[in-house]
Amino acid sequence: MPKRYAIGIDLGGTNLRVALVSRGGEIIRKIKEPTSEEIINSIFKAAGSLFSDEIAGIGIGVAGLVDRKSSMILISPNLHVVERIDLVNEIRGKFRVPVFLENDANAAALGEKWVGAGKDFSNFVLFTLGTGIGGGIIYDKKLLKVSAEIGHMSIDVDGEKCPCGNSGCLESYASARAILSKAVSALEKGRESLLRECCGGNFYKLTTEDIYKTALDGDSLARELLKDAGRYLGIGIANIINLMSPESIILAGGLIGAWDIYIQEAMKEASRRALKELFDRVKITPSSLLDDAGTIGAAGLVFQNEVISE
Amino acid sequence: MPKRYAIGIDLGGTNLRVALVSRGGEIIRKIKEPTSEEIINSIFKAAGSLFSDEIAGIGIGVAGLVDRKSSMILISPNLHVVERIDLVNEIRGKFRVPVFLENDANAAALGEKWVGAGKDFSNFVLFTLGTGIGGGIIYDKKLLKVSAEIGHMSIDVDGEKCPCGNSGCLESYASARAILSKAVSALEKGRESLLRECCGGNFYKLTTEDIYKTALDGDSLARELLKDAGRYLGIGIANIINLMSPESIILAGGLIGAWDIYIQEAMKEASRRALKELFDRVKITPSSLLDDAGTIGAAGLVFQNEVISE
Repeated sequence: MPKRYAIGIDLGGTNLRVALVSRGGEIIRKIKEPTSEEIINSIFKAAGSLFSDEIAGIGIGVAGLVDRKSSMILISPNLHVVERIDLVNEIRGKFRVPVFLENDANAAALGEKWVGAGKDFSNFVLFTLGTGIGGGIIYDKKLLKVSAEIGHMSIDVDGEKCPCGNSGCLESYASARAILSKAVSALEKGRESLLRECCGGNFYKLTTEDIYKTALDGDSLARELLKDAGRYLGIGIANIINLMSPESIILAGGLIGAWDIYIQEAMKEASRRALKELFDRVKITPSSLLDDAGTIGAAGLVFQNEVISE
Repeated sequence: MPKRYAIGIDLGGTNLRVALVSRGGEIIRKIKEPTSEEIINSIFKAAGSLFSDEIAGIGIGVAGLVDRKSSMILISPNLHVVERIDLVNEIRGKFRVPVFLENDANAAALGEKWVGAGKDFSNFVLFTLGTGIGGGIIYDKKLLKVSAEIGHMSIDVDGEKCPCGNSGCLESYASARAILSKAVSALEKGRESLLRECCGGNFYKLTTEDIYKTALDGDSLARELLKDAGRYLGIGIANIINLMSPESIILAGGLIGAWDIYIQEAMKEASRRALKELFDRVKITPSSLLDDAGTIGAAGLVFQNEVISE
């Protein structure tokens, strides 16, 4: 009898999510806590509390660049601590089950393919729109094992310098971090806006939710910030459509909460820029698993690899 | 006994190439002529002269966007005539063998994988650098059946309008057409250059070979044109490295003749922009099949599909 569950770990830049997932892709129990420098202990504790004889393996999705051959994390800009540890071997040593590693957005794409918004598509590209921008590509029903660093595609030749070394990265214009940094900079320059009334007047504490709400109230700065970011996202989407001719683009991450302004603007821009014959065939749609896509997909790595090795 | 040969057709914007190709990927005979409005007749004649009982099928690579489900050519900006004809059925009707259709750069990628510079790589991306810029992606040793319109990736948000509808397309900066149009425009404005001495003084007849030769003679305009174009190409290469983490980038097309300036500059720019961990692993290398990649790859479609359907 095959074991009934897998544990999926989603190690983003800010949160650690761990879930017990069934062979049907259903979450049985889940744990969420902030990431810390003590990441290995946090994982041991959270996974330990879900562990049993019925666990077929553990899958991990990590925000960063993964070397699949060595199962090492090459770079993780928002969680440097994992660059220095052999996460896979540490977890394997502790729990003595098969352990699999993927990039977090790739794992989320796999989750959406398995039981989410991508279930009925053979070819789609997932964009994760949060602090940064990540991507995952499903082709012929399977995850493409490539870097898919959509956020570090340059769309502006002489644009802003990105910490990654490139200039004009999509992430520097269309991510939550970019929107917030532009908001702060406008407010520092004295721009009039209802945003000044958020967070008890401390605009350094603004969130993208604040900006969206204020935009819906008609504030022109807030609207401008979301529309500008959306326009850049649309360029990124058009580029991916022209490259990968997907059946669907699935949008995930906190920023899809701002759908009616940010995403609408992105779709408009993408429709203007992508090859018409390709755009007309693509369905742009939100994630259905939302914050659970990463843990479900990570658990899916376990069952997927099991099948392959049979 | 399986039939010994396939016919590969490469229908680019300017030339029609037809070749008789063995199961080993060797060209036995080949024909090249300029494309014309009478394209079907030209194909019938050229393929007819290579046809025999030993032909397993005919593969066609066409410059343009191909719909693999309907086997139709959706758009072919440099050869509009093929948009209006059912090429696959016409050829099948005439020769009564299996006929397969692909984009020309995709077919070339398949050729390089089969017997060319990509033979030993499992994952690579081919760039065709000619009048326009095309691409083909090999993943896990197989051709990705995607649009791979690398030339229509926007790398400059408010950049030049492209006939495809997008703005800032890679092709508008790094292709032969772009280089020549910038050369003419500089010369029209009276810029001093040895290029004025080419083509009997008629700079509207310049070729990229003229520009490369003049650049090697130290002409500053010619050098600038190639370096600028190379810099943009480098951005395109970096984007593809960040997205696809290939083992190799294979460069094909007439412009690779300008390797020492144009491609060198592109490699320098890509090394500055791509994620270091990915760039350090990628081998940037020229096509080895050159103008034959397209016909060999197109013939390869026949043998490949045969294997799949066995």
